[in-house]
Amino acid sequence: MTLVSVPTAADIVATHERIRPFIHRTPILTSAGLDAMAGCQLFFKCENFQKVGAFKARGAMNGVLSLREADRQKGVATHSSGNHAQAIARAAQMAGIPAYIVMPNNAPQIKKKGVLGYGGQIFECENTLAARETTLARVVAQTGAYEIHPFNNYDVIAGQATAAKEVYEDLGPIDIMMAPVGGGGLLSGTVLATRYFSPGTTVIAAEPDLANDAYRSLQSGRIEAPLPPTSVADGLLTSLGDKTFPIIREGVPEIITVSEAEIIQALRLIWERLKVVIEPSCSVPFAAVLKKPDVFRGQRVAMILTGGNVDLDRLAKLFS
Amino acid sequence: MTLVSVPTAADIVATHERIRPFIHRTPILTSAGLDAMAGCQLFFKCENFQKVGAFKARGAMNGVLSLREADRQKGVATHSSGNHAQAIARAAQMAGIPAYIVMPNNAPQIKKKGVLGYGGQIFECENTLAARETTLARVVAQTGAYEIHPFNNYDVIAGQATAAKEVYEDLGPIDIMMAPVGGGGLLSGTVLATRYFSPGTTVIAAEPDLANDAYRSLQSGRIEAPLPPTSVADGLLTSLGDKTFPIIREGVPEIITVSEAEIIQALRLIWERLKVVIEPSCSVPFAAVLKKPDVFRGQRVAMILTGGNVDLDRLAKLFS
Repeated sequence: MTLVSVPTAADIVATHERIRPFIHRTPILTSAGLDAMAGCQLFFKCENFQKVGAFKARGAMNGVLSLREADRQKGVATHSSGNHAQAIARAAQMAGIPAYIVMPNNAPQIKKKGVLGYGGQIFECENTLAARETTLARVVAQTGAYEIHPFNNYDVIAGQATAAKEVYEDLGPIDIMMAPVGGGGLLSGTVLATRYFSPGTTVIAAEPDLANDAYRSLQSGRIEAPLPPTSVADGLLTSLGDKTFPIIREGVPEIITVSEAEIIQALRLIWERLKVVIEPSCSVPFAAVLKKPDVFRGQRVAMILTGGNVDLDRLAKLFS
Repeated sequence: MTLVSVPTAADIVATHERIRPFIHRTPILTSAGLDAMAGCQLFFKCENFQKVGAFKARGAMNGVLSLREADRQKGVATHSSGNHAQAIARAAQMAGIPAYIVMPNNAPQIKKKGVLGYGGQIFECENTLAARETTLARVVAQTGAYEIHPFNNYDVIAGQATAAKEVYEDLGPIDIMMAPVGGGGLLSGTVLATRYFSPGTTVIAAEPDLANDAYRSLQSGRIEAPLPPTSVADGLLTSLGDKTFPIIREGVPEIITVSEAEIIQALRLIWERLKVVIEPSCSVPFAAVLKKPDVFRGQRVAMILTGGNVDLDRLAKLFS
């Protein structure tokens, strides 16, 4: 059954059991060099090693597995140009149901190939939010498929919560848990997992200066619109949803924003020192740690590395 | 006590206990996408996440910890321009003894900084084997330090053997274990761990065409000289030693050699699909799997990703 209100502790425990056979329990890496640089003890939860290369596999899997049998039969649909598209296609394939994915016609070929590789059907449209939503509505009307939103969906949020739950299971109490924030699916799930399973931990989020809508939303008390999509952290450009924002407002005392140069410097350090391939969005929390050492000094700090689906050619340019 | 003959099973068990507090137990990663591509089940032992970013931390730590008290007091010495230099400096620092490292004067600044960061003392020399050996002999004569060779040393071999031992502990029986081969320290340790802890497993090595001295040595039955150092897999340019060659000759039925293009293609696939930063030397076994699918089809194949200390600027060029 799909969730109609904020996931409880029992919901998240049940979610974890439900999706466990379909996801990796990802490792947590540490680096004495990065610790020395940051002045605190850092734990990196490697969701870049997750199925489809991103934490999105968790929420999508739970979204699909939580459907009522009647809803499930007609398949699932979503619009996404990124990791959620592949995650939904894969989850549907695991469940043996169709997946209809609306993608902008300028989406990278590799992302389309990923969706097709998991048996998803692609519907192309213009690259505007309006075109995506209209196309998705048409696909849903035609197919009867169930829409699974990338973040504004309690089943998806419960799925993303399992990443932080695993951190608490593996590490015991930690002082600070960090996640980046785009639409807020991962961050709201992280808030809930922390409230239920590690209530002594403080959740701190991080966001690019050039995509600081969540920061401004916490200031103003309402969901602020996104800025033009210019940040290199291209997974964090969305604004919050009406399901994610209230959870984040209650559970996140601070969002630290960082510059593009700080994001790229942190990205390079993680690649070089931690030896993992991550998307630019992932390095935003670490950039925040380096920017505000007083907040973190001497603390045990965990952070979720959200995904590793990068275009190496593009990254090569960033680093040169 | 330092070992004077081929390490026994008990030696390797004792080595593992001895070095365990000073090394990471590195994770083993899998990728459904790479499995589908290779036609077999692949397990990647991530020694790129090891301390100092390479498996060399194991052998160096054991080399230092195995010294007699009298030898230990005067410190340790080696010549290396690569991972062994940092590994020895770190191991000596852990043991509270001096480390004297001979490095070519054109060694990358970052490698020198690494050694200095672990408290090692650097002695620079011309970049020829003769100059390195002469300088090392002088340093040893002056300081009384104990030389720890990067591979032709039974304590080092026993240390490197612990990587494969961990694979067998974590995965149980596997069909094929792979390692790249340079001087043969890792490969000979892998042969021993396999003989003692997973005797049903076949060890297959891989080597660049442009550095195929181990391949030729197996053919001729004697240690063949290295080719000029032109391969991108710059950790594999050394020739075998008189301690590593006999073990390898007895325990490695096949060495598969691969081209530079095959190495770079495999490197890119591992970066993109496994999301890990590895040195070009690491991708040589995976390149061999892709090159000879009939050897591996349907098998459970483990391979050791040996290190992750790469210059991102240089890598960016390889991928462009």
